[in-house]
Amino acid sequence: MSYCVALRLDSGLVFMADTLTNAGVDNISHYSKIHHWSRPGELQLFLLTAGNLATSQAVVSHLNEASKLSGKNESILGVTSMFQAAKLVGQQLREVIVDMSKGGQEASNKFDATLILGGQIKGENMSLYLIYPEGNFIEVSEYEPFLQIGETKYGKPIIVRAFDPVMTFEEAVKLLIVSFDSTIKANLSVAMPLHLRIYEKDSLESGRDLTLEENNAYFQTVSETWGSKLKEVFGQLPDFSFSNEVK
Amino acid sequence: MSYCVALRLDSGLVFMADTLTNAGVDNISHYSKIHHWSRPGELQLFLLTAGNLATSQAVVSHLNEASKLSGKNESILGVTSMFQAAKLVGQQLREVIVDMSKGGQEASNKFDATLILGGQIKGENMSLYLIYPEGNFIEVSEYEPFLQIGETKYGKPIIVRAFDPVMTFEEAVKLLIVSFDSTIKANLSVAMPLHLRIYEKDSLESGRDLTLEENNAYFQTVSETWGSKLKEVFGQLPDFSFSNEVK
Repeated sequence: MSYCVALRLDSGLVFMADTLTNAGVDNISHYSKIHHWSRPGELQLFLLTAGNLATSQAVVSHLNEASKLSGKNESILGVTSMFQAAKLVGQQLREVIVDMSKGGQEASNKFDATLILGGQIKGENMSLYLIYPEGNFIEVSEYEPFLQIGETKYGKPIIVRAFDPVMTFEEAVKLLIVSFDSTIKANLSVAMPLHLRIYEKDSLESGRDLTLEENNAYFQTVSETWGSKLKEVFGQLPDFSFSNEVK
Repeated sequence: MSYCVALRLDSGLVFMADTLTNAGVDNISHYSKIHHWSRPGELQLFLLTAGNLATSQAVVSHLNEASKLSGKNESILGVTSMFQAAKLVGQQLREVIVDMSKGGQEASNKFDATLILGGQIKGENMSLYLIYPEGNFIEVSEYEPFLQIGETKYGKPIIVRAFDPVMTFEEAVKLLIVSFDSTIKANLSVAMPLHLRIYEKDSLESGRDLTLEENNAYFQTVSETWGSKLKEVFGQLPDFSFSNEVK
């Protein structure tokens, strides 16, 4: 599994993904799960992947090859709306999965991948899409403008409680670190280093690209402080009292 | 889905379960997911169920009927060790699932249920078992003496961080409420009221049996205080700073 999150802030987009991939516990490696297409001043697209690595890589490679062969106009670099981009990626994903499933393996879900596509195209607002293995997709909710894929459950409660689109990038990174820390502590299939991309609204530039390594001092501080503060707050909550409860 | 947790404290066992069951979002109802067999002074067994309701009910009914028909000696009321109890329940679970799967439905996993069996039998220590749909089972870890079934992921991080077997019952209930609150906030298939059973070590008595209704004042206080404190602590964490990070 993987864990990837995309936040749509008022001031831009923040993407975070872990880097661990595994085909069984005895076959692990690290890959970037954030892919990027850029035409400065025109288009910035970020793609996050969770699921079958061969599928994710095939989707990205096909999209890249198509943009080389047919030129930018008919490719991912040439789309003129985020909806078109999501449609193109969704079609490519479906094609790859259908193609792989032809090889005799019946269980097509083994080839499944789920994607988050986010970014901005000149003249449009920023947006985020969740793309399903079937190739269809949904846009992010206006009410809770974040998307998660992969091992989403452990790290969801803190996002639900603390996420606010008016956050700064710095606060958003902090939130994501808390969410990833909870996930990493509870699930072996998600692991450091973490990959972070930040896109500033209307900049149409690539933005920041950071990697947080295992020994990252800030990550460790947040993890430890959060853990001890959580215990402290837990201790401060009023204790349950049996005398107040009636069966 | 459901959410059930069992904690083994030094001073006893604590069980909590939600009560919602659903066959689709348009067909919901409330059932107790904690079942109890008791022979005061001799045996106290608690069974928590998650998964197919028909399967869970069939398992409990078969166990009850067998204890009426064959008397206590060859039934769940007559087991002389927790291991025997887990074996009996596991066998019953497997039989029910195999039997239901014969009816033509191929997807046997639709009939799956996962169980937690906990309790104490005279002359033995308290113990907890996780019983799989296949009928096999594992005993709780000495290092992290708690078990979860159903929608376990949302509420796991706080248990991992804050659970300690030396806790009092009151603290344990508080911890479970925080864990259930996180789950309920994130997943529609888990809902109030919550059912709570507490077994005191070596008492061999039924112990406490409580229901926390939706409007339970303590639950609401914990939920609200936890939510606001969490945001407060989050705010106190040092913010991320891009200047400290090198690409």
